[in-house]
Amino acid sequence: MKAGKIYSHIQKKKSFLCIGLDTDPKRIPSHLFDTDDPVFEFNKRIVDATHDLAIAYKPNFAFYEAFGSDGIKSLERTADYIKTNYHEILLIADAKRGDIGNTSEYYARAVFQNMDFDAVTLSAYMGKDSIVPYLSYAGKWVILLALTSNEGSSDFQLANALEENKKLFEVIIEKSKNWGTADNTMFVVGATHPSLIADVRKIVPDHFLLVPGVGAQGGDLEMICRNGLNQKGGLIVNASRSIIYAGDSEGFEIEVRKQAASLQSQMAVILENHNLL
Amino acid sequence: MKAGKIYSHIQKKKSFLCIGLDTDPKRIPSHLFDTDDPVFEFNKRIVDATHDLAIAYKPNFAFYEAFGSDGIKSLERTADYIKTNYHEILLIADAKRGDIGNTSEYYARAVFQNMDFDAVTLSAYMGKDSIVPYLSYAGKWVILLALTSNEGSSDFQLANALEENKKLFEVIIEKSKNWGTADNTMFVVGATHPSLIADVRKIVPDHFLLVPGVGAQGGDLEMICRNGLNQKGGLIVNASRSIIYAGDSEGFEIEVRKQAASLQSQMAVILENHNLL
Repeated sequence: MKAGKIYSHIQKKKSFLCIGLDTDPKRIPSHLFDTDDPVFEFNKRIVDATHDLAIAYKPNFAFYEAFGSDGIKSLERTADYIKTNYHEILLIADAKRGDIGNTSEYYARAVFQNMDFDAVTLSAYMGKDSIVPYLSYAGKWVILLALTSNEGSSDFQLANALEENKKLFEVIIEKSKNWGTADNTMFVVGATHPSLIADVRKIVPDHFLLVPGVGAQGGDLEMICRNGLNQKGGLIVNASRSIIYAGDSEGFEIEVRKQAASLQSQMAVILENHNLL
Repeated sequence: MKAGKIYSHIQKKKSFLCIGLDTDPKRIPSHLFDTDDPVFEFNKRIVDATHDLAIAYKPNFAFYEAFGSDGIKSLERTADYIKTNYHEILLIADAKRGDIGNTSEYYARAVFQNMDFDAVTLSAYMGKDSIVPYLSYAGKWVILLALTSNEGSSDFQLANALEENKKLFEVIIEKSKNWGTADNTMFVVGATHPSLIADVRKIVPDHFLLVPGVGAQGGDLEMICRNGLNQKGGLIVNASRSIIYAGDSEGFEIEVRKQAASLQSQMAVILENHNLL
């Protein structure tokens, strides 16, 4: 899926919402435990209830790996369900991998070949040869960690003065933007740093940014958009917990849809105001 | 397993060898495909043939994830086999994870609780709160990526002048060494940078270092040891492909053992020369 295609989905749905499937069995409504695979059933209901409001879904691999091979089966079923039923969705593997080249080939196979994800989040710390194997898959995306949404982002990413007074996350974006193109590379920039998104835009005016941290982590959507939107959309904003755990009983999908619709309608107004529709 | 215990195993076996289980089905001897789970059977034979020569095994998760939930089952069986039969082995999950705190809790559960690994490799790029959840497991280890063995290590890890003319990998070690202790934290330092191991030792004189890159990647064991050994051993040196793919027919275990024994006997001499036995 090329960048232009993603933008056309943004325009069609008036949304740049990604929903994070950080599915914790402890927080799944109890009636789903009557089914064989409650994690999959939960995800299926979330997706069915929101697919017209979101352009992307992002399963967080940790939540599936925590349950071993059974958890991976739930993940495989979720990916397959989304790809089979909702072709226009950008399916993001939130795996944050990063390893030497020969190992990266196997991680790439896991997410792009076996499970047919469209994109994968990666750490660039190990450098170019750790990322290149993913870029050889036509139509797929790498999403490189630049500036994350958590407190620890100040430990290294915001460390001062790596080359000519730049911060580490800026150096990472500057160097890695040349490994691929704006049609196969995005960057993670946390919603909790809305003012720094403007600095990121100076380095990569055309790239899509994946912005987690809206919702439970408290990022400010208006400011993110003011600093991050470009002429082709250019933003995919993720919310996880605030949407998927909005309800906890039978019919929880209604509350889930309500939360997703609330974000989508804010996004529609913003897109309108930025003349992007 | 505390650092003193690891050192006692090093002394007993006269070895600080870790064998990387980067098991690729394409390189497994063909007769093993008569079994239900060739990947597990291969690993089992490797471990049975070398457990007295190695102090640690390090399955590389990418090679298992590339085969979906079936691959994870082979990994789970491998971990269980080693922990059940060889209690003194340090079992390292080479997963290179790194995510926000609430997500790290799930990755920690996957490797430490479900599969009972003793240690996990992690990227520190996302900072302290991405690592702390792993440190709450008593007796377990985090192994933080500092300076990796691949070409891409020069892209960011060796970037100049982050605070007072230090390199990024030095800043990462300096800061993160205080998150845990020398009894629960190690650092990855690639064998392809033997001279820089001396710089690492100045920052963390007491910590264990995990050194990949001997063997297929060409690191120099003598120089690594001259610069990296401390009074309690302090080194775990990994070889993967050069050992596990030493043979390719029935009886491949004999070649595998030969390669492991060659490294072990070099290590025995080095330990003797450094008065560490």
